[in-house]
Amino acid sequence: MQTQTLERMESGVRTYSRSFPVVFTKAQNARLTDEDGREYIDFLAGAGTLNYGHNNPHIKQAMLDYLSDDGIVHALDMWSVGKRDYLETLEELILKPRGLDYKIQLPGPTGTNAVEAAIRLARVAKGRHNIVSFTNGFHGVTMGALATTGNRKFREATGGVPTVGGSFLPYDGYMGEHTDTLDYFEKLLNDKSGGLDVPAAVIVETVQGEGGINVAGIEWLKRLEKICRANDILLIVDDIQAGCGRTGKFFSFEHAGLTPDIVTNSKSLSGFGLPFAHVLMRPELDKWKPGQYNGTFRGFNLAMVTATAAMKKYWSDDTFERDVQRKGAIVEERFQQLAGLLSENGIPATERGRGLMRGIDVVNGEIADKITSKAFEKGLIIETSGQDGEVVKCLCPLTISDEDLQEGLDILEASIKAVI
Amino acid sequence: MQTQTLERMESGVRTYSRSFPVVFTKAQNARLTDEDGREYIDFLAGAGTLNYGHNNPHIKQAMLDYLSDDGIVHALDMWSVGKRDYLETLEELILKPRGLDYKIQLPGPTGTNAVEAAIRLARVAKGRHNIVSFTNGFHGVTMGALATTGNRKFREATGGVPTVGGSFLPYDGYMGEHTDTLDYFEKLLNDKSGGLDVPAAVIVETVQGEGGINVAGIEWLKRLEKICRANDILLIVDDIQAGCGRTGKFFSFEHAGLTPDIVTNSKSLSGFGLPFAHVLMRPELDKWKPGQYNGTFRGFNLAMVTATAAMKKYWSDDTFERDVQRKGAIVEERFQQLAGLLSENGIPATERGRGLMRGIDVVNGEIADKITSKAFEKGLIIETSGQDGEVVKCLCPLTISDEDLQEGLDILEASIKAVI
Amino acid sequence: MQTQTLERMESGVRTYSRSFPVVFTKAQNARLTDEDGREYIDFLAGAGTLNYGHNNPHIKQAMLDYLSDDGIVHALDMWSVGKRDYLETLEELILKPRGLDYKIQLPGPTGTNAVEAAIRLARVAKGRHNIVSFTNGFHGVTMGALATTGNRKFREATGGVPTVGGSFLPYDGYMGEHTDTLDYFEKLLNDKSGGLDVPAAVIVETVQGEGGINVAGIEWLKRLEKICRANDILLIVDDIQAGCGRTGKFFSFEHAGLTPDIVTNSKSLSGFGLPFAHVLMRPELDKWKPGQYNGTFRGFNLAMVTATAAMKKYWSDDTFERDVQRKGAIVEERFQQLAGLLSENGIPATERGRGLMRGIDVVNGEIADKITSKAFEKGLIIETSGQDGEVVKCLCPLTISDEDLQEGLDILEASIKAVI
Amino acid sequence: MQTQTLERMESGVRTYSRSFPVVFTKAQNARLTDEDGREYIDFLAGAGTLNYGHNNPHIKQAMLDYLSDDGIVHALDMWSVGKRDYLETLEELILKPRGLDYKIQLPGPTGTNAVEAAIRLARVAKGRHNIVSFTNGFHGVTMGALATTGNRKFREATGGVPTVGGSFLPYDGYMGEHTDTLDYFEKLLNDKSGGLDVPAAVIVETVQGEGGINVAGIEWLKRLEKICRANDILLIVDDIQAGCGRTGKFFSFEHAGLTPDIVTNSKSLSGFGLPFAHVLMRPELDKWKPGQYNGTFRGFNLAMVTATAAMKKYWSDDTFERDVQRKGAIVEERFQQLAGLLSENGIPATERGRGLMRGIDVVNGEIADKITSKAFEKGLIIETSGQDGEVVKCLCPLTISDEDLQEGLDILEASIKAVI
Repeated sequence: MQTQTLERMESGVRTYSRSFPVVFTKAQNARLTDEDGREYIDFLAGAGTLNYGHNNPHIKQAMLDYLSDDGIVHALDMWSVGKRDYLETLEELILKPRGLDYKIQLPGPTGTNAVEAAIRLARVAKGRHNIVSFTNGFHGVTMGALATTGNRKFREATGGVPTVGGSFLPYDGYMGEHTDTLDYFEKLLNDKSGGLDVPAAVIVETVQGEGGINVAGIEWLKRLEKICRANDILLIVDDIQAGCGRTGKFFSFEHAGLTPDIVTNSKSLSGFGLPFAHVLMRPELDKWKPGQYNGTFRGFNLAMVTATAAMKKYWSDDTFERDVQRKGAIVEERFQQLAGLLSENGIPATERGRGLMRGIDVVNGEIADKITSKAFEKGLIIETSGQDGEVVKCLCPLTISDEDLQEGLDILEASIKAVI
Repeated sequence: MQTQTLERMESGVRTYSRSFPVVFTKAQNARLTDEDGREYIDFLAGAGTLNYGHNNPHIKQAMLDYLSDDGIVHALDMWSVGKRDYLETLEELILKPRGLDYKIQLPGPTGTNAVEAAIRLARVAKGRHNIVSFTNGFHGVTMGALATTGNRKFREATGGVPTVGGSFLPYDGYMGEHTDTLDYFEKLLNDKSGGLDVPAAVIVETVQGEGGINVAGIEWLKRLEKICRANDILLIVDDIQAGCGRTGKFFSFEHAGLTPDIVTNSKSLSGFGLPFAHVLMRPELDKWKPGQYNGTFRGFNLAMVTATAAMKKYWSDDTFERDVQRKGAIVEERFQQLAGLLSENGIPATERGRGLMRGIDVVNGEIADKITSKAFEKGLIIETSGQDGEVVKCLCPLTISDEDLQEGLDILEASIKAVI
Repeated sequence: MQTQTLERMESGVRTYSRSFPVVFTKAQNARLTDEDGREYIDFLAGAGTLNYGHNNPHIKQAMLDYLSDDGIVHALDMWSVGKRDYLETLEELILKPRGLDYKIQLPGPTGTNAVEAAIRLARVAKGRHNIVSFTNGFHGVTMGALATTGNRKFREATGGVPTVGGSFLPYDGYMGEHTDTLDYFEKLLNDKSGGLDVPAAVIVETVQGEGGINVAGIEWLKRLEKICRANDILLIVDDIQAGCGRTGKFFSFEHAGLTPDIVTNSKSLSGFGLPFAHVLMRPELDKWKPGQYNGTFRGFNLAMVTATAAMKKYWSDDTFERDVQRKGAIVEERFQQLAGLLSENGIPATERGRGLMRGIDVVNGEIADKITSKAFEKGLIIETSGQDGEVVKCLCPLTISDEDLQEGLDILEASIKAVI
Repeated sequence: MQTQTLERMESGVRTYSRSFPVVFTKAQNARLTDEDGREYIDFLAGAGTLNYGHNNPHIKQAMLDYLSDDGIVHALDMWSVGKRDYLETLEELILKPRGLDYKIQLPGPTGTNAVEAAIRLARVAKGRHNIVSFTNGFHGVTMGALATTGNRKFREATGGVPTVGGSFLPYDGYMGEHTDTLDYFEKLLNDKSGGLDVPAAVIVETVQGEGGINVAGIEWLKRLEKICRANDILLIVDDIQAGCGRTGKFFSFEHAGLTPDIVTNSKSLSGFGLPFAHVLMRPELDKWKPGQYNGTFRGFNLAMVTATAAMKKYWSDDTFERDVQRKGAIVEERFQQLAGLLSENGIPATERGRGLMRGIDVVNGEIADKITSKAFEKGLIIETSGQDGEVVKCLCPLTISDEDLQEGLDILEASIKAVI
């Protein structure tokens, strides 16, 4: 494999090519192939972007049909048949069955862009600047979103410009199991000199992906919503990584029965790995005036075509949902065994997750690295997350075959055993 | 045409669908078709995103071939054959022939993301926070980029959060023809109490698109580069709208013979309207550590495939360049005539632009609106820009046929006459 | 008493004249006299500014002598005999006996100015922007200091400009008695994605005055210092209200045996109610270049003369210190009785404080107001603090006579009984 | 003279003691005496703080009388006879005769504090964050005020925290004599994408002291006021250095017949070098709620007593004003001669100023330094200002005797000749 040009020309900012230093050529569902013809099972799947697998044939067909008709690919935010289909399908298959009533904003096609739009809208709607986010939360790295992202790696690479307008509070479980961290939030809200500017909104992931597969409890999430309602604070669920079925429901907040004021989706939203994002908002929050937030690629038509196809294929009934939950249970059980195995061998480890968003926390980032390196050698692409990369995480395609899932898990087990 | 769902569900932030309230179905090169089968000539072309026309068949074929092979669509920033081809082609066909030596960063696939990365890199590299941008400049709306974007429409919709780390200076010509605005910049740089924090970088468009097709003079640009060099300030050319051939050269700064320290491209970079962006930087500026700036859709493979095809088709020699210049001259001449016509009829108007980035400034936004509305009635999609929308601008595909170009210009003339 | 001009001309920002709407004419030690000749015992004493009483004769004499000699009153930051005496006395009587080695900065003569200088110095010295302060902390209201001040009253009156560069953490006891709030601080420091930018410094009051006479435990303070040392974070003790003997030691941090990196003093520093402030810093932290922080009234000579006199009179030995502790014990005992009395009568109340900085927390701001209003009727000037003004606080002159102290406490008791 | 303690203990931030490294003991009107008994004529006078001279006997007497009566020295912002006298006298002798109707805020006793209060009030009143200030303007160094202060010395010593909420525009004459810099301001105000956020207020010095005795033209000031009125922008005149008679009128803006919305005074306001400041505001702008801006030393009573005495002595009629103008003319004439002398000897120099706020611009900071060093040797205390310290400035007491004024000017002439 020829990699010199890649190494020479690409900025030092590159990351995943360091963990997996091969040149990939093609991919199908949960399998990637490199230039030497070697196949890998993919437990990373675009960090949650390929919930329906690589090159999903149903979705691809819709795209090819559209292209062969010279359908509109790029139209700024003009109206198109593709956009209309998308909105109608979203309403019919996703929103209405869940009792949700939202308007939709199509910002630039990335998660950080959706978050920037969401928090700006919240500020405009409430007339307050502060946005509360949580320890270990990740919501993007453009300067507005970065105010809500906890990682020092990004926060310290701004060339000295501090972020403005965000406050961090402890996520569920952050202070140990005996402390409900929302007590602290509530105390601060009621305290006129506690230093917490009354927030316009809280932005939260129900399961933190980059932060280490931290799972917020159902009761904690319900209480968070309640506190927001009681204090006239908007609740934004950033469902960019946990949404689109990853946790076993289309929206991750369905487990807790929440009705967020604003929702952000991206990553798997297009269903095909195409850049795409939207912001959902309760209709009365739509304070935007024409053009107050813009971007060249808002409402990317090809992505709306594939997103529509994905919804029609997988979300017309609950078959897919139940299948994800079934596979999630398989991974959960196996991860618990692996965590047990690690713990028995002197590496304290715990399993956690929801649906097919699961991880094994091995506490130590170096050990986690060894495991994933070994797995890569053996043909499994799997990554770590958490502040020290201490959590080995599984974000495999939701459409993965049972055989590939088993094979992936077997490789992981072998890798863990090799490390022990 | 059924538009109720669109009107009901989409946020009030939508813009272009207000000027062109029809539902588009398909498009080929410079022609769009709406659901009623009506055709329009496209002088907007995705605000400079479709330099090679809608559904360019050469580029589309490359994409279809790639898709039929199950090529990698989404791979975060892992290595792929598509990425390697892109880098090699960019180096071979674009950088080397122009004597440019750059490393490349693939940020999120939007212009604002590229600008955020560029200014952050400049700050990190220079250890200073200030970025100078210019009156009427537009560089995106995420909070970091917004510090360099002049429009109040966006700046006042942040929910009260002021932007941090940007200073605006007068663009070429801003203070009338007898004042070289760089005198002011130079005086401020040399003034220890002038209030201008020594900038890490200057970010400039050589022709301001959103700002009203304002064209910086060649000498002004050269002097700007010189001032930057003399003061250890980085020069960032934001070539998102003016690049990729729009002004008659691949990079708009070639006209002035500049060698920017950092370049941002997006919009037409993919060649097919796909979201894509890159940042080019002098190798010694690559101070990024792994992962310090990230994003899910960085290095969108499908876009790299189409971008490669576009470079191979249009930039292997200077045929295309010369053709753009030829068409630019056609538009220039016709716009001068139209400006003269308007002026004779009591509407003072002037023509300006470079290559196929051209406008007629009719001073008054309402008049400009009337002209473009009339044009839309007659089958031409054309937009305005400038602080009051007072400039009727032509950003037609560079690949437009001579017949369509003439027809578009004829419609514009008829529309202007109708308004007079 | 003629108050029309005062009411008409003075801005609505005025506060204390609303609680005590009389015109005062003169004052001696702990007694104030209004224009009608009525006397009041002063348990407010300039909110801790008049530790040595009103018009302290010893200190006044030094000032009169200086003035009669035409001593320099204002000299910017030039050298004067007054300044030299001040520095020598400070070193001899205060620093050396306590084993402290500090350089001194004379900023503008107010507390907020000292805090601005202190946190700016910390940022310059450490090259980091973040300053940690605590819930209910008060460190001044100019924009730099305000980033460390918790009160919404001030934070929401900035015309929408958010403060930059501060993070709030829970003060000792904030999360209930079973939680050591420094666990949270330590966890955040060790967490690479917890959202806490590594701070340049922590700024803390050992007893929070405005925040409600909240007393940090000795062990908590020691641990805070330890955490700072271990993480290369500077420890700033803001001793503006608690310093100059108020807690029974010259510096309030002596109780915990701390050696802060930076100390701010103001309020009682001049000993006579004159505006004055200084910043003490460990010598190696003095990264200031000439004139990098300035102000017209830095090093106010008259105040240095009175400050010197105060040190010589009260801090040559430990007599004064012991007397303050003795009186503190008197107030403590009485306040405990009063808190008991309130609690027995259905108003849950607790006593707290250190030295002569003491309060009764009656939980409810309206009740506290009733008590202090009643006290004012009866001839006692006493104020509340805390986020809701729920703490009746005693900041009487340290030099108060035992008779006046008893009379003041008797009035307070009578007022409380009247409210019950 | 013993200076070791001073050198050892005082922070490196000290400035004036570097230019004048002697220990001063006493002072009378325009004469300072050092510890060796040497006398100096004072052309610095506290950088404009001692308009009525050192230890002015009339003013001192008022202070001594007040002290001997045990008048209230410190009372937070409670009402006192001293405050009432101050307000009444200010209204009677200063405001009414000039047709001004203002409410008064007594912030902390420093200029920067007054500026922080003024710009915050403007933001609150207008609901906008931006404050326009001018090149070479100086308005203080606390973080809020610093956003309006041009000097890099301070701006670069914030430890990397950028200032927020200020925009700098060119002061009168900044772009050469053929450009009216207000054309630029007006163009930016009318430009929706010029990058200038519509300001809440403009803050301006009519003569820039620290900036180099730059004098705004009368017509420029009038036009500035007009632009502000036309655009609903508040006009703040920062009269901290130029006010209290320095330019030959009590307020420096009287020359241009302005009626600012907000005025800040400090420096000579107390008349005796005591820290003191106030903010004057048009009554309808008083949007402050009780206590929204506070500070321990607001309304320093001793300073109000001396300020009242100063007003009564010097501002009951126009005698003093005319005398200042007379002396101003003497300095002006002499400075013109000296500028001519310098220019003839190869050092291009110009005279400028208004009233007794005058300077000779010798273009080069090193030459200016040589002149003032030589002057100090010869017994004259005189400083430089301007971005490079290139302006030798005279800020002698307004009460200076004609003999001392002549002697000072003679020394300056001799020093200049020595340098030539």
